[in-house]
Amino acid sequence: MIEWFDDLKLEMRFKSGEVTVSREDIKRFASEFDPQPFHLDEAAAENTVFKGLAASGWHTAALAMNLAVQVRPFGPHPLLGMGVDDLRWMKPVRPGDVLHIEGEVVELTPSRTKPQGIAKIKWTAYNQHGEAVYTFTPIGIVPRRPA
Amino acid sequence: MIEWFDDLKLEMRFKSGEVTVSREDIKRFASEFDPQPFHLDEAAAENTVFKGLAASGWHTAALAMNLAVQVRPFGPHPLLGMGVDDLRWMKPVRPGDVLHIEGEVVELTPSRTKPQGIAKIKWTAYNQHGEAVYTFTPIGIVPRRPA
Repeated sequence: MIEWFDDLKLEMRFKSGEVTVSREDIKRFASEFDPQPFHLDEAAAENTVFKGLAASGWHTAALAMNLAVQVRPFGPHPLLGMGVDDLRWMKPVRPGDVLHIEGEVVELTPSRTKPQGIAKIKWTAYNQHGEAVYTFTPIGIVPRRPA
Repeated sequence: MIEWFDDLKLEMRFKSGEVTVSREDIKRFASEFDPQPFHLDEAAAENTVFKGLAASGWHTAALAMNLAVQVRPFGPHPLLGMGVDDLRWMKPVRPGDVLHIEGEVVELTPSRTKPQGIAKIKWTAYNQHGEAVYTFTPIGIVPRRPA
């Protein structure tokens, strides 16, 4: 069971549950945070590079965060990060897509000064066709096991 | 006036309008996308590393996207990106904080094969105290001026 930084190992893998992305959610998120035609309106989206309605990349990012929170890769400790490396959107996320994420521990660096470590997990989001649509590598902070 | 990739120059700067982050918005975003105690509940948040309610980093990211869309750094062309470099959260965003973003063009790379270029703008979000709370450098795609 993972409880502390010390329980994480390189190449350890995680897999989340699924989330379905609805047309309404795509438009609602976009109207609040990313109001561009290809995220808001089917007809307007047809004439863009997306050739149809697509979720805001930040919506996909937020959905992936929620899936990661459910995975609890750090056990009882929160998902808390300084930032994110290698955030990339590879394919559009469409209305009705069913996403899940898979993660792999790619870097573990104990702090020299604090009772914690930096854990980087490379997460990739896949759609129902098995296509990788999004990836991000959060720089997580996890407490060390008390001596 | 900026209309095409060719109109962008290194060190060109942008500044957005402001957005106020409400307590209700922080909790609403967190309950949908990042349901962890320090984003959801004042009392629970007191006993965490944040010592009080703080916005999800992904909420801050979404708010910054909205400010960037309003800035229109690519003129009539959309904000469309392959991903983001150097995403970092430096300080908590609190209920009542007033954020704006400032951007600087840090990299311009014309495509060798397509009539477009990659434009990287380093954006930094500041709160009402002038503190940098968040930074991100989207990898934007902007069309070139037709010959």
